[in-house]
Amino acid sequence: MKLCTFTHAGRTRTGIVAGAAVVDTGVPGTMIDLIRRFDDLRPGLEAKAATASGIPLAEVRLEAPVQRPGKIFAIGLNYADHIAETGLPTPQRQVWFTKAQTSVNAPFDPILIARGTDTTDYEAELVAVIGSGGKHIAADDAPAAVFGYSIGNDVTERTWQRAVPQWALGKSFDTHAPMGPWIVTADELGDPHDLPIRCFVNGEARQNSRTRNLVHDVWQQIAHLSAAMTLEPGDCLFTGTPAGVGAARNPPLYLKAGDVLRTEIGGIGHIEATMAEEN
Amino acid sequence: MKLCTFTHAGRTRTGIVAGAAVVDTGVPGTMIDLIRRFDDLRPGLEAKAATASGIPLAEVRLEAPVQRPGKIFAIGLNYADHIAETGLPTPQRQVWFTKAQTSVNAPFDPILIARGTDTTDYEAELVAVIGSGGKHIAADDAPAAVFGYSIGNDVTERTWQRAVPQWALGKSFDTHAPMGPWIVTADELGDPHDLPIRCFVNGEARQNSRTRNLVHDVWQQIAHLSAAMTLEPGDCLFTGTPAGVGAARNPPLYLKAGDVLRTEIGGIGHIEATMAEEN
Repeated sequence: MKLCTFTHAGRTRTGIVAGAAVVDTGVPGTMIDLIRRFDDLRPGLEAKAATASGIPLAEVRLEAPVQRPGKIFAIGLNYADHIAETGLPTPQRQVWFTKAQTSVNAPFDPILIARGTDTTDYEAELVAVIGSGGKHIAADDAPAAVFGYSIGNDVTERTWQRAVPQWALGKSFDTHAPMGPWIVTADELGDPHDLPIRCFVNGEARQNSRTRNLVHDVWQQIAHLSAAMTLEPGDCLFTGTPAGVGAARNPPLYLKAGDVLRTEIGGIGHIEATMAEEN
Repeated sequence: MKLCTFTHAGRTRTGIVAGAAVVDTGVPGTMIDLIRRFDDLRPGLEAKAATASGIPLAEVRLEAPVQRPGKIFAIGLNYADHIAETGLPTPQRQVWFTKAQTSVNAPFDPILIARGTDTTDYEAELVAVIGSGGKHIAADDAPAAVFGYSIGNDVTERTWQRAVPQWALGKSFDTHAPMGPWIVTADELGDPHDLPIRCFVNGEARQNSRTRNLVHDVWQQIAHLSAAMTLEPGDCLFTGTPAGVGAARNPPLYLKAGDVLRTEIGGIGHIEATMAEEN
């Protein structure tokens, strides 16, 4: 099943994507509320998707599927090809940082190059959306803890990222966590570890890899994070970016206003944004 | 005004602390909802605090004043005395990291030493709770962006903090962000930059400083953060810890099960927790 958050006729709600239409789930609340109750809701949603008439996708505004995740954790240096381009050694231990809740952006909205900055960079990422979650989840049990998968771009302000040892601010600018266009449930997507992942700037492929190049796979990521903290419904894990980021080019090539940034993952779809200067 | 989140008779709500009693605000929703509407609500709340009979403080359970902050940002190396004990140079630029929303803990609840860890440490901190918030807030305008102040302890798992360059996981263990016991509104507290701040373990003073030793003051912190991201009602800023953390002692002295950790800030009050092993 593909689930989205959408706005139509001034009201934001959750929907089931069925072909080229969106069927209102009728479930009160946000995607997080839906995820919490999904096991009970599922038969009704499946029936509704099969019978109800939807709103054409082209007539709705797609929002980030989880507009306000309780947590957004992102892992650094987690694709073999990206590690090679940085020249850094492969980290033996997972390196995690965060993106602020306020950095979430709708999948087709403009992404802002912040006032006074000119080193905004892209990082295409598979996003795992937590379902049941929990604490101390073993890697073998991790598949059952995932609700589904979405596409994200871990947009990064490189100068702020490098100005201090902690990346939290450089990763947390407003609009720098675009996600969408929907969540493909875990059962529908299947194993997430061999999907094509690509990032394009103005139609030119800048990143082109497969999720089989993940150093720490999604299950290991969930095991590691949940050793420290409780994972909750709707928490979003950015699972790493492959080679090809602008900062690794010689000379570096950053995003500029008017650039069109497209991120694609096979089996999910794509998100696309035009870069714009912050006023 | 002192505002708290409390549970009584099985229901969690916001309250006004008046002497040794808590008066139910009657405002629907959480502290964040109250903060959003505070300018309008204030006259009514003041009248209620003056006339309504409250529930004795001793009969309620105090919760973290903001149980689910949208963001918790914390600044590192921000007291002159703490920088001296680490032997590190004074950072020219503010160094920020985050604590996960799920690390929030009630002010008098046990704090957990996580399974498989034995290097849990304390860091007493003044917490600024954002009111109106916003983006690109100048330091001169920052006082108006603060709703009030609370006490926090930036409890840290040192081994996880040091295992990788990013501190996000070592700072985000469940129960490691105790806050409370209430929020003192900014107008009632006045300038937050010369308050006594102390941390005790089993009655022994381990940290004893004043907020005048902040390197980057609260206004500079808000200006810096809001250059990158929108600050929102209820966001919590941990403003730094003074000298005396367990990791800086020779030999290091970490918290163990049964230890009583008390954090005090003049003009606000205290929070106190017993350390316990995670099951």
